Amino acid sequence: MNDPVSAAYEAFRTELESQGLLISMGVEGLYGRSGTFEDVVERLNAAIGAVGDPDGPEVMRFPPGLGRLQLEKSGYVRNFPHLAGTVASFAGSNQDHAALLARLSNDEDWTDMQRPTEVALTPAACYGVYPVIAARGRLGAAGALVDVYTWCFRHEPSIDPARMQMFRQREHVRIGTPEQVASFRALWLDRARALVESLGLPAAIDVANDPFFGRAGKLLAATQREGNLKFELLVPIVAEAPRTACVSFNDHRDLFGRAWGIELEPGETAHTACVGFGVERLTLALFRHHGFFVADWPDSVRHVLGF
Amino acid sequence: MNDPVSAAYEAFRTELESQGLLISMGVEGLYGRSGTFEDVVERLNAAIGAVGDPDGPEVMRFPPGLGRLQLEKSGYVRNFPHLAGTVASFAGSNQDHAALLARLSNDEDWTDMQRPTEVALTPAACYGVYPVIAARGRLGAAGALVDVYTWCFRHEPSIDPARMQMFRQREHVRIGTPEQVASFRALWLDRARALVESLGLPAAIDVANDPFFGRAGKLLAATQREGNLKFELLVPIVAEAPRTACVSFNDHRDLFGRAWGIELEPGETAHTACVGFGVERLTLALFRHHGFFVADWPDSVRHVLGF
Repeated sequence: MNDPVSAAYEAFRTELESQGLLISMGVEGLYGRSGTFEDVVERLNAAIGAVGDPDGPEVMRFPPGLGRLQLEKSGYVRNFPHLAGTVASFAGSNQDHAALLARLSNDEDWTDMQRPTEVALTPAACYGVYPVIAARGRLGAAGALVDVYTWCFRHEPSIDPARMQMFRQREHVRIGTPEQVASFRALWLDRARALVESLGLPAAIDVANDPFFGRAGKLLAATQREGNLKFELLVPIVAEAPRTACVSFNDHRDLFGRAWGIELEPGETAHTACVGFGVERLTLALFRHHGFFVADWPDSVRHVLGF
Repeated sequence: MNDPVSAAYEAFRTELESQGLLISMGVEGLYGRSGTFEDVVERLNAAIGAVGDPDGPEVMRFPPGLGRLQLEKSGYVRNFPHLAGTVASFAGSNQDHAALLARLSNDEDWTDMQRPTEVALTPAACYGVYPVIAARGRLGAAGALVDVYTWCFRHEPSIDPARMQMFRQREHVRIGTPEQVASFRALWLDRARALVESLGLPAAIDVANDPFFGRAGKLLAATQREGNLKFELLVPIVAEAPRTACVSFNDHRDLFGRAWGIELEPGETAHTACVGFGVERLTLALFRHHGFFVADWPDSVRHVLGF
């Protein structure tokens, strides 16, 4: 990252904080949100929902965490250990507590006293869906369609306000045959572009690759890129920086179907795809492109957001 | 816990899951929510907001986490280490990653490779507020009034569906003089009881004490009880079990004011109080008392929820 980019991120963040839209929490990538910011998030989320409503998806809402074993089984720990978050807690005795109190009083590190719990943080909204669908048994030819909205965590502290450690994703998830999954993704590529353009935001769609970890990850990224497995809808937020991925369109092939043993018919492993909207990123793009005063936004944009 | 109580919790949970309102995630205390459940959560949350709107609180919305140092400074780690959650992540090299992959492939424990991050999970909605208010400097005689709504985590796996590990709290927080804080709490004791009764739920208010950890905690609990520092609004959810705390009314005296150095006027440390609504608990109480079909709920209840 060169200096003008860092400076531009800092300037945008300072502007958002001085307008009161984001609230510093003293940790990079964690922010409080004002009522105004949150109102736009909710309206945007409703607008995304309205696009998908005609398909009649099943609505599932998950907490910000899931089982650690579930995260492991999904392959996320293997591929993105640097981003994954697991939850630790104190599991000691009264005597251990005395030691903990002494450490706290002396401003000494106490984190080595924490023990892993069975809970991990959700890295992407759709991760909660696969084990739930798998537990229902064979799906049949129609497959499944699920609408989720979840707080996600990725450990990537950044000065870029659009790269938060905790953020929300609205996703639609399709579980079915390769053909069902392909047509779902094609449909949402069009729908998402139309929605984002109706919000007055310049959208470009490009092939993407995830930041898989390490040496093994290079190969996975190449496979993802060459197989056109992931597209992103990019919007310029900070002009000096690369465009920001605000929606992603993922074809997981049979990765989750195999991991969870999701079958359509006997012996036929399901394929899955998801479209995920980053609601904070789109909200930041709206403030960037239309200004900090929602009342001054273009009528057409306000209409889409139900103002 | 005796057997009839456990059986009653299990029966209620099974009913909620078979009605599709809660979705098992394979970890005690973590549940997905159906669209119907979530719709009630949102309407309830709006009804709570409507009660507080006339006071004109400042709206702040926080992610499910806050800085680990902030959680520590607030005293939570000291008093409730067994409930507190901190977030760990992988911070190793390519070589460490190879070791991690080997552990995962061999189904061996890998959690000792996780390193603490700067992020902790939020134990109660108001914890995000104090550092933010403190950072603004002296408050003046009027103090502050804040409306928050946050996902919280407490590590207490339970078969009681009303004791979730991840749940949402809607809180109003008052920061001011002891008199301002006392009248805020008295006002909300009345308001909360009226709201809960308008929802057709039987409400009782009682003195409460928090599950402070260990030997030192016994004294803190006694102080809290004897000082009337915490009241709870209790609703019977599972008839065989103790009533469930659905709203809490907390007088923190100058605990957070001192911890964060929040001043009203020079040398005058702020007192704080909060009223916290457990939205999942109230939602479960609604389904328990009025049945699993929202359309059949009493008209008066449906009216309060804006149906």
